[in-house]
Amino acid sequence: MEFRYYMPVRIVCGRDCVKKGAEEFAAFGKKCLIVTGKSSAGNGALADVQAALARNGQEWTVFDRIPPNPTVESVREGGRLARECGAEFIVAIGGGSPMDAAKAIAMLARQDAGEDIFSYKSGADVLPMVHIPTTAGTGSEVTPYAILTNDEKETKTSISNPAFFPKTAFLDGKYMRGLGQETTAYTAIDAMSHAMEGMLSVRAGELTDALAKESLRILRGELPALTKGEYTDEDRDALLYAAALAGMVIANTGTCAVHSMGYSLTYFHGAPHGRANGLLLPEFFAVCEEKLPGRAKEILGAAGFASHEELAAALAPLLGEREKIGEGLLRGYAHKASVNKNIKNCRVFFGEEDLFRVFSRSVGE
Amino acid sequence: MEFRYYMPVRIVCGRDCVKKGAEEFAAFGKKCLIVTGKSSAGNGALADVQAALARNGQEWTVFDRIPPNPTVESVREGGRLARECGAEFIVAIGGGSPMDAAKAIAMLARQDAGEDIFSYKSGADVLPMVHIPTTAGTGSEVTPYAILTNDEKETKTSISNPAFFPKTAFLDGKYMRGLGQETTAYTAIDAMSHAMEGMLSVRAGELTDALAKESLRILRGELPALTKGEYTDEDRDALLYAAALAGMVIANTGTCAVHSMGYSLTYFHGAPHGRANGLLLPEFFAVCEEKLPGRAKEILGAAGFASHEELAAALAPLLGEREKIGEGLLRGYAHKASVNKNIKNCRVFFGEEDLFRVFSRSVGE
Repeated sequence: MEFRYYMPVRIVCGRDCVKKGAEEFAAFGKKCLIVTGKSSAGNGALADVQAALARNGQEWTVFDRIPPNPTVESVREGGRLARECGAEFIVAIGGGSPMDAAKAIAMLARQDAGEDIFSYKSGADVLPMVHIPTTAGTGSEVTPYAILTNDEKETKTSISNPAFFPKTAFLDGKYMRGLGQETTAYTAIDAMSHAMEGMLSVRAGELTDALAKESLRILRGELPALTKGEYTDEDRDALLYAAALAGMVIANTGTCAVHSMGYSLTYFHGAPHGRANGLLLPEFFAVCEEKLPGRAKEILGAAGFASHEELAAALAPLLGEREKIGEGLLRGYAHKASVNKNIKNCRVFFGEEDLFRVFSRSVGE
Repeated sequence: MEFRYYMPVRIVCGRDCVKKGAEEFAAFGKKCLIVTGKSSAGNGALADVQAALARNGQEWTVFDRIPPNPTVESVREGGRLARECGAEFIVAIGGGSPMDAAKAIAMLARQDAGEDIFSYKSGADVLPMVHIPTTAGTGSEVTPYAILTNDEKETKTSISNPAFFPKTAFLDGKYMRGLGQETTAYTAIDAMSHAMEGMLSVRAGELTDALAKESLRILRGELPALTKGEYTDEDRDALLYAAALAGMVIANTGTCAVHSMGYSLTYFHGAPHGRANGLLLPEFFAVCEEKLPGRAKEILGAAGFASHEELAAALAPLLGEREKIGEGLLRGYAHKASVNKNIKNCRVFFGEEDLFRVFSRSVGE
């Protein structure tokens, strides 16, 4: 038994928890920057946050110019705004993009990251953050990661800092009521991928395994709803909780080859992040079944699947029509994935040929 | 789905993790007070800590005058010593007594708690702590509680403060090698009691349930070793991990009626804490089976028991000869338990008659 575990975020879960938990915001200061995506305003989370802040006599500025797959430019703009408005803390509302961007903004509000944010080693002086996920996938609300678009390297790159853990995460499935089927399904697949990849990490331990299996058990139970595209509030709560559990896993284990590969499908083909992972996950497990069969079976089994074929059959209806990408491009993506830092994080070694095999069987012509 | 969860301790688990993780101590300052019991020195933990501190060039003073069931006097003495030696952080080594005492000492080193430590509302200014459990029961290494002997009220009383969460907990089963059978078994029962009582708390939620069930599953697997009194290092690691999981549960849920009752058996009859809980646990569940049958079955089932009778049969060989206490005394203990704050924390209402019933069926004449 050997592992490290750290997840210092206070989780507040329940219907109307933002309104009921208004006092949670009070400790962080008078002025706040709310970071959110353009689409996040409609789900009621922004109104709930504003009501809570108003009740505490706190002031806020809203920054809603975070694009999906946040750019460095957008977080720099957010950092400048945070300084200008004298923000003492950040509230992030939305999916992975606003929540990840908020972390970079909270850092840029206090530190000058220089020319290259990706090579900058950020310190602990980061504005405190409160995160409110409105999709159930990223788990960013309980991780120390911010994943940004890296145009120089043509991929998405994770920046990490223990100070990026939010102080508090509010989980309320009601904010997912208006979410489209695609986003709901893709983000759920992202959560599944986190739990599965986390169990294959070299940093996996007993505690993250227990959390990952609990996440996979819940996601398995939600598969009928995901396939039908019909959700009760209980389904939404369960998905949000499963995503947070999977986030607690990767906060400690990191992700593996699936994420390394998926970034190319997102960067070059616009595949939403969770869908990109879902396209690759079954063939990734086909390799794992060969190289580390016992563990692959354990992980798939925890999600209710006897084999990678069963996983593929379950995910197929959620993914829509597959991309057909030529061999030349896929060889390039395989190379790019092979030098991604996540590859070394996997208990199963994925060489460039393995990565190409997964790509070509998943999205080859 | 409604719960709150917070457990900010960094857990470092594995063989020789203290030596390998020496750098974990470095951040907390130059001078350290090591708080430990007299018996803790022999298990190698103290030597490992001293080696780690020496490697970092840190200085230490050892305070080993913590009695079992720590007194207010002993923690006040520790607090004075911490001030005198200019300790910037505390390392606690031992079972629940030194670990709980260390929290009070870390507070008293920075705050004047006045005449009555139990009614004092302590603030956040508490020395940072590193905890190293050498028994697998209390879970104190991952909780914000310090439980001290309260002579005025003739019981043990918990003082609580989010700042009592240690910064880091090191889990290494090797420190339990020299532990006697009684201590090993009693502390394991304490862990089981934490997991079970946590699931009956009004603050129980999905996440603490998952952790509690994992703890109970592991403890169930260790029952043969506990009954035989023969342990491999893997058994010790598993017990230590199960106790930490159960600690993560009660850090969020608190304990219930069993702990409220057990304190009298400890205070007036010298029953070790875990044994006291074990004596009461089956008859506590007999009441729960009547008043909340579904949940009682779920909890007992998670530990591998079909009924409170099966639990009683499993615990009996570990508990030794039962006390036989007269009705008059037990009525007094039942009254004392009925006004303990933990009673309100239980989903099942335990009135004074219920408490008396549990007492008399467990340890009555």
